Amino acid sequence: MASLVPVSDPADPRLADYVRLRDVNLRKSLEAEHGLFLAEGEKVIRRAVAAGHPVRSLLMARRWFEPLADVLDGLDAPVYVADDATMESVTGFQVHRGALASLERLPLPAVGAVLTGARRVIVCEDIVDHTNIGAIFRCAAALGVDAAVLAPRCADPLYRRSVKVSMGAVFALPYARMTDWHNGLSTLREHGFQLLALTPAPDAVPIDDVKTADRRALLLGSEGDGLSSRWLHEADHRVRIPMSEDALARGVDSLNVVAAAAIACYSLTR
Amino acid sequence: MASLVPVSDPADPRLADYVRLRDVNLRKSLEAEHGLFLAEGEKVIRRAVAAGHPVRSLLMARRWFEPLADVLDGLDAPVYVADDATMESVTGFQVHRGALASLERLPLPAVGAVLTGARRVIVCEDIVDHTNIGAIFRCAAALGVDAAVLAPRCADPLYRRSVKVSMGAVFALPYARMTDWHNGLSTLREHGFQLLALTPAPDAVPIDDVKTADRRALLLGSEGDGLSSRWLHEADHRVRIPMSEDALARGVDSLNVVAAAAIACYSLTR
Repeated sequence: MASLVPVSDPADPRLADYVRLRDVNLRKSLEAEHGLFLAEGEKVIRRAVAAGHPVRSLLMARRWFEPLADVLDGLDAPVYVADDATMESVTGFQVHRGALASLERLPLPAVGAVLTGARRVIVCEDIVDHTNIGAIFRCAAALGVDAAVLAPRCADPLYRRSVKVSMGAVFALPYARMTDWHNGLSTLREHGFQLLALTPAPDAVPIDDVKTADRRALLLGSEGDGLSSRWLHEADHRVRIPMSEDALARGVDSLNVVAAAAIACYSLTR
Repeated sequence: MASLVPVSDPADPRLADYVRLRDVNLRKSLEAEHGLFLAEGEKVIRRAVAAGHPVRSLLMARRWFEPLADVLDGLDAPVYVADDATMESVTGFQVHRGALASLERLPLPAVGAVLTGARRVIVCEDIVDHTNIGAIFRCAAALGVDAAVLAPRCADPLYRRSVKVSMGAVFALPYARMTDWHNGLSTLREHGFQLLALTPAPDAVPIDDVKTADRRALLLGSEGDGLSSRWLHEADHRVRIPMSEDALARGVDSLNVVAAAAIACYSLTR
């Protein structure tokens, strides 16, 4: 059974895992240094624990005991209990979902390990926005993508915003991170994956027209500039989501990355 | 040619259209009272003007003159010129895109008017989030949906956030608003539309399996609760986006409304 520890001093050093959650730079270095990440809200905390992440501690309002009782029962970690004002002072915002958990990251598998047995994968080159990476994981997991591979500079799926937006899908979709961007796609080739580079370029092939292969990898580029020319060049096919001619004439010439990824994952997994 | 008016006092009454842009309640009442809306950034301002919205005024940093010179040339409205600090004081945030325009709303067409000649339409019941309605308009316009119909309580596509997220697609996709939610779908029926209600319900028909009709309307429900039971009941078919069995087993059981709308619009317009 977890031990319940009332806290009321926002400067309490035991709450160090939870400070200034909106300060992206601070959080990145703090979380990397301690190998931790934060989960927010009952549902997401439950999924993080079920995925096997050891719990460092929880911080919650008293009203969350009961909904989380079964999770707390099995825990060895301290549960810091605070009122809403204390939580807001520590975290820097109003914690609407009322419960936070600090959990340990697990070592990521190697790229080859997540590809073994997978048939449909996404490869994210430089998705930089945490909201976007979370939403893309949610789409990919829901539609039946088997795994994700991230380029070295792609945003962290375990950053708080990513985890929250993904609704915990970051715990359901196995993923690995390349150590080498330049030759990163070679591992996918070695595993027999057809590489499909998603691009808005008008001369790319409509995504549903590509002859299907047994193992397919969808390459997704960054929000602003899309895929690098190297990755576009390395792909087997450059694929696009067909845009309406009327829309093009009226200046609407692209989808946002999450909408494009959703449609492409749907096409990939059909 | 527009007249250039330097301003430096954040309390200047001529800047009243631009105050406290993040105060949703204030903005809703202010914009309704004056029949105005705001466009942000060069591209979106350009599209709003091209769509025929009369300009009340602009507020911008000096560096935006040149990129917008052709637009300003044709205008009769005052262009308030301010430094970044003044703009931030007035609007309540740092205006990254550096240029704002206040424009007049135009009377919306009747529902029947946007349906005439349309073959693929979306009907938004109660999408309450401005970001979501903007993203949905962008998807729908890009993929070739012909028009949108909004229920009385659906969020405003001309709210600043909606306009921005839509990248101006709110000016490209004709739309109308129902005055009566209860009987709102009858106009669609009278125009011969097949009504497809999008739902995550497992017993709904996979969206690509519905026999296609000449005129199809996709009904989209609110972020939290989806479509009302009345609209689900009124539809010809309840349709779903098939989820992966594996994902369901791991607790990932739905897509967010924008991802779902993107896939459904793609299916609708193929």
